[in-house]
Amino acid sequence: MSHFDALSALKTIRPSNRKPDQMRAVTLETGVTRYAEGSCLVTFGHTKVLVTASLEQGVPGFLKGKGQGWVTAEYGMLPRSTHTRSRREAAAGKQSGRTQEIQRLIGRSMRAIIDLKALGERQITLDCDVLQADGGTRTASITGAWVALAMACNKLVADKVLEKSPILDQVAAISCGIFENTPVLDLDYDEDSNAETDANFVITGNLEAVEIQATGEKRGFSRDEFNALYDLGIKGAKELFELQNAALAAK
Amino acid sequence: MSHFDALSALKTIRPSNRKPDQMRAVTLETGVTRYAEGSCLVTFGHTKVLVTASLEQGVPGFLKGKGQGWVTAEYGMLPRSTHTRSRREAAAGKQSGRTQEIQRLIGRSMRAIIDLKALGERQITLDCDVLQADGGTRTASITGAWVALAMACNKLVADKVLEKSPILDQVAAISCGIFENTPVLDLDYDEDSNAETDANFVITGNLEAVEIQATGEKRGFSRDEFNALYDLGIKGAKELFELQNAALAAK
Amino acid sequence: MSHFDALSALKTIRPSNRKPDQMRAVTLETGVTRYAEGSCLVTFGHTKVLVTASLEQGVPGFLKGKGQGWVTAEYGMLPRSTHTRSRREAAAGKQSGRTQEIQRLIGRSMRAIIDLKALGERQITLDCDVLQADGGTRTASITGAWVALAMACNKLVADKVLEKSPILDQVAAISCGIFENTPVLDLDYDEDSNAETDANFVITGNLEAVEIQATGEKRGFSRDEFNALYDLGIKGAKELFELQNAALAAK
Amino acid sequence: MSHFDALSALKTIRPSNRKPDQMRAVTLETGVTRYAEGSCLVTFGHTKVLVTASLEQGVPGFLKGKGQGWVTAEYGMLPRSTHTRSRREAAAGKQSGRTQEIQRLIGRSMRAIIDLKALGERQITLDCDVLQADGGTRTASITGAWVALAMACNKLVADKVLEKSPILDQVAAISCGIFENTPVLDLDYDEDSNAETDANFVITGNLEAVEIQATGEKRGFSRDEFNALYDLGIKGAKELFELQNAALAAK
Amino acid sequence: MSHFDALSALKTIRPSNRKPDQMRAVTLETGVTRYAEGSCLVTFGHTKVLVTASLEQGVPGFLKGKGQGWVTAEYGMLPRSTHTRSRREAAAGKQSGRTQEIQRLIGRSMRAIIDLKALGERQITLDCDVLQADGGTRTASITGAWVALAMACNKLVADKVLEKSPILDQVAAISCGIFENTPVLDLDYDEDSNAETDANFVITGNLEAVEIQATGEKRGFSRDEFNALYDLGIKGAKELFELQNAALAAK
Amino acid sequence: MSHFDALSALKTIRPSNRKPDQMRAVTLETGVTRYAEGSCLVTFGHTKVLVTASLEQGVPGFLKGKGQGWVTAEYGMLPRSTHTRSRREAAAGKQSGRTQEIQRLIGRSMRAIIDLKALGERQITLDCDVLQADGGTRTASITGAWVALAMACNKLVADKVLEKSPILDQVAAISCGIFENTPVLDLDYDEDSNAETDANFVITGNLEAVEIQATGEKRGFSRDEFNALYDLGIKGAKELFELQNAALAAK
Repeated sequence: MSHFDALSALKTIRPSNRKPDQMRAVTLETGVTRYAEGSCLVTFGHTKVLVTASLEQGVPGFLKGKGQGWVTAEYGMLPRSTHTRSRREAAAGKQSGRTQEIQRLIGRSMRAIIDLKALGERQITLDCDVLQADGGTRTASITGAWVALAMACNKLVADKVLEKSPILDQVAAISCGIFENTPVLDLDYDEDSNAETDANFVITGNLEAVEIQATGEKRGFSRDEFNALYDLGIKGAKELFELQNAALAAK
Repeated sequence: MSHFDALSALKTIRPSNRKPDQMRAVTLETGVTRYAEGSCLVTFGHTKVLVTASLEQGVPGFLKGKGQGWVTAEYGMLPRSTHTRSRREAAAGKQSGRTQEIQRLIGRSMRAIIDLKALGERQITLDCDVLQADGGTRTASITGAWVALAMACNKLVADKVLEKSPILDQVAAISCGIFENTPVLDLDYDEDSNAETDANFVITGNLEAVEIQATGEKRGFSRDEFNALYDLGIKGAKELFELQNAALAAK
Repeated sequence: MSHFDALSALKTIRPSNRKPDQMRAVTLETGVTRYAEGSCLVTFGHTKVLVTASLEQGVPGFLKGKGQGWVTAEYGMLPRSTHTRSRREAAAGKQSGRTQEIQRLIGRSMRAIIDLKALGERQITLDCDVLQADGGTRTASITGAWVALAMACNKLVADKVLEKSPILDQVAAISCGIFENTPVLDLDYDEDSNAETDANFVITGNLEAVEIQATGEKRGFSRDEFNALYDLGIKGAKELFELQNAALAAK
Repeated sequence: MSHFDALSALKTIRPSNRKPDQMRAVTLETGVTRYAEGSCLVTFGHTKVLVTASLEQGVPGFLKGKGQGWVTAEYGMLPRSTHTRSRREAAAGKQSGRTQEIQRLIGRSMRAIIDLKALGERQITLDCDVLQADGGTRTASITGAWVALAMACNKLVADKVLEKSPILDQVAAISCGIFENTPVLDLDYDEDSNAETDANFVITGNLEAVEIQATGEKRGFSRDEFNALYDLGIKGAKELFELQNAALAAK
Repeated sequence: MSHFDALSALKTIRPSNRKPDQMRAVTLETGVTRYAEGSCLVTFGHTKVLVTASLEQGVPGFLKGKGQGWVTAEYGMLPRSTHTRSRREAAAGKQSGRTQEIQRLIGRSMRAIIDLKALGERQITLDCDVLQADGGTRTASITGAWVALAMACNKLVADKVLEKSPILDQVAAISCGIFENTPVLDLDYDEDSNAETDANFVITGNLEAVEIQATGEKRGFSRDEFNALYDLGIKGAKELFELQNAALAAK
Repeated sequence: MSHFDALSALKTIRPSNRKPDQMRAVTLETGVTRYAEGSCLVTFGHTKVLVTASLEQGVPGFLKGKGQGWVTAEYGMLPRSTHTRSRREAAAGKQSGRTQEIQRLIGRSMRAIIDLKALGERQITLDCDVLQADGGTRTASITGAWVALAMACNKLVADKVLEKSPILDQVAAISCGIFENTPVLDLDYDEDSNAETDANFVITGNLEAVEIQATGEKRGFSRDEFNALYDLGIKGAKELFELQNAALAAK
């Protein structure tokens, strides 16, 4: 009996009444903007992120002439995507450390599953803009970004620019945490702001990890606790892979 | 026979096949975010702007102790709201002159129709974020901002913080222009980028203007031409007032 | 009897004792700096703006290789050009929204009356620096900028770089406003800070407009009021055209 | 037989000829600056980081009046701490995303093992400046920062400001990675720039983790691989705890 | 026979045909702006600097409650004050190192001759804006700033705010240099850009120095050369003191 | 009997018990970093500055194609190099005026003694980072920078890139000041913060000056006082030249 099966059996202590290993309702709606080469409105419960994939010819200076492409990401929150209004970063004149950390994470996650040589001297930028935030915006962004990226790559094939998609594998991300001493899957804001530990898993289709970030917010975490979170992360990723495939197929 | 009646009779030259005095389909959807005190998703054809009204206690430093409130606005475009991706202003480290010009316009338009003394020492910020741009984003923002602002004020009444809404009048905005020598109402992007003249009218419920901005993009405009645009602006505003009222009533 | 004739008949209510349709004393002194290709010290009463036109080879990146030139403007106020000292924008690290709005307006106004193809791959920058401010600095800047621009273009002809000046028409600007319910021409600071409505007209030699910006500062304005302001704007522009021509001829 | 025992048996493939589970020579020299309340020059092989702990009265605005203290960190690299010169961040006008990510990590790690209430309304800032970089600067910073922090807290006790040190536990950090398909401890620059996977473990004295960050740089990593890295991280942390204690005792 | 007497005897080698110890025509015009508490348009040949003294109640944060005032300076060049246009610092988003160096120098020079305690908790800001630059703008700024500062202090006495002026002494500044191996007084741009050595002397009424800055631009300078420059600096300062006194008296 | 001999005879009034013409213990340790082409850890008593010389191919834009090289400098203080912590300039987002002034001074001093043509199209950057500050950091930086620069140039010779070193002369710098009415050599922080006058001399091997900066901090200084400082500066420079030569020879 795996960790999460055992956990499912527990009387839930989650504010949302979800079972410990239960994700929120997740939707991945594609084709939501008129102009972008790929787009996906991803929702995890009340969290809503609009992701667009923009294809541009050419690559950044540090890659000029290396015969490869580039994939990068930018992340932002609308000022009132949160419970109380946050300052607009464009008005503040800079992106916060948190923003930069998140967009670097999204970019690395995408680059982990694409063949940049096969992409050719093109750049795809994933813009992840949070319309409404209720926890898990970075993992929702990654999950939706893969869909938008895949669409943009499929378009390159459909347009006969590339023979086949340079995407090598799926990638999805999910947050887990220890809430009231219980490992739970897919933290919402209520849980996240009170969790003892918070961990994000970025998992590929072959169930390897490309990023793990775990933080003991209120106390350290034991190796057993970490393993329980890892189990939950794998479980969540599997569910997300199916939703991603369905979203792409539906298009 | 007024200018716009005459114009309606003409064989249309508009890329969208609209009549010269015909607005695009406009929708004003309220309550689109969970947290904001007022919100409105406004669409003018393919132009989509998400407006939120955020209420905060207190006022900016220059108004401290003056016994009045403040209403201000911020404007932004998602990087891929446009045909080709624009640089994210937060990443660039500053808001462009165009952005500042627009958000100052929205703020002045709102302050023109609210009694700031009656609002008390509170600030309402209207965030206007363009999800998709097809011309007319600033006028759409103003039209939607009034709805979000009215909702936030109505909430102050519903919450028994104020006895009556400090809103004194309606306000809506519409762009007009001279396209292929014909005055037309509500320019879309195709028209806007080729118009000889572009004019924005911000009109209050009593049909007075609070802002007029007209620019001869390719050539100067005659006084007759300007008057034709003014007629169209008034016609458009009247239609928008009805839609605003319906949106508030529907809530 | 036109609007402004009627107004002239009124007992004046202006702090300066001017008649409603009376401009301040305006001077346009050319050749005031040793280095600039064109220069003009423009005064409207106590408002003094030093305008220089700087010619440079080449064009900004977005125009490279398009076989045309560019005209742009920058605007600044000396910190103590105003009644109380304002913060130096260079020290603050950015130009205010107002500054950017004004310099964009000046630039558009100049580009409206010049043949950029005929200018060739050259850029002319109009620097408008306010030495003393008493209202109307943006309209004074435009009026003086045309003189400096014309001088720089004439120099290109005199130097046999161009066969004829690429300037197509004159352009001048004037502010009008509704002060104590009376439409008046050329607001000074006392009037401007108390006006109900403030409108700037940028008018070309053929009496077409290239920019109109009208703002209801304290209340909306009716169409009749706006028309009275427009009449005043045209009257003022005509007077300014004569002064511009005299200034150029005097050189 | 644990992972790292098995690994030790392998013929080493490391450029430095270290065994897979062998750390570089680590030194922690205290009292290296005259002014700071705590200081530590930490070296991991050729990596050298100067850490100072600065005590200041008062706390940042968001903590005013909450009866608790704050611990934060800043990180920087001297421009020529690296193989080729990097741009000075002060000259560039901003800290990179990487810098902010690292200093946030150091700060969280320190706050995980201190009782902020017991510290009282004081702030301790850990400045971690890299004099020479050969991989592992963030983990070296954390390991040295704990020593400097402990010194500053001990000084508060010695100065009779506090009765006992608010430090609750030790904390140290170490990087591990998969290099040529072998899990290895304490990556140097040669290894780091070629590793398939890179993981940082921040471990407390009771062998719990407070931060884990693992990244698949070239490919995903399996759960077995991750577990081998975790084993190495724990082994490294234990060795570092002894060195930290010796450094404090030596003082 | 002093150095400069000897030098005067030489056949001049200066592009301007001035004798080695001959200053350019210097004018100090006061009362040139309507609003500032003190103002002076200072010209040294073609160099023109507009200086205003602005009096404000209160002092910067670091002087709060210390019972003293503050005098500071800001410096700027209009973009086309120079032979070719320079970038506007407000547009560039920062003041150059040169600008900051100069304004710090002006500020120190003024503080050297005023009793800040006697000034009381007031700040006087000297804005030195270069309208036209032909060498020596920093020394012209200091020389003119003293006049503007004295006027502002005299106004405090005239307004019966202070019983007597807090100004303790005069201060003036002049540049000297070694041009074609000859020490010369008051370098203009032609000389400055070709001088072997460039020295600025800030001298008080009792002929003490408060600042000396000498730079060997093309080669080092001997002690004899330096002494010759110092002699010239004293000679120049004496002439400037008379002009300053005349300017104040004329007012 | 020279000035400084006379001074040495006086009963000392220096907090450090040094004689008026006595420098602090100075050390110049070379080869202190692994990567830089030249490096020097320079100490003047408790002042410690780490200087690295970084060689890069190519020159800044303004020198492209002129067939010459460039030498420049950057300066920084670690936040806790001072008695109380200063704000990190990278976090503040800009370098202070003082920092820029100092790094410009260091750069000019180095360029005064190198043949930039002979260096060829290469740039050498001297990074001067203050690890601990007890007065005289700019003069220590210059003194150490010459050593690092010479090492980098010698390396170009050793690597057979250049036939001989482009260094033309030695350069060293020392501060002097008037402390309790006595001219003293090499101010430490205690003296510097209380000195009446502070002067920095940058002297070349042939005992010419390339920079003199003297400031009357509390009062003006007489010509005799200045001459006494100049004598001390020359004495100090001679001692530093020997130490520089010894440091290079020791390597």
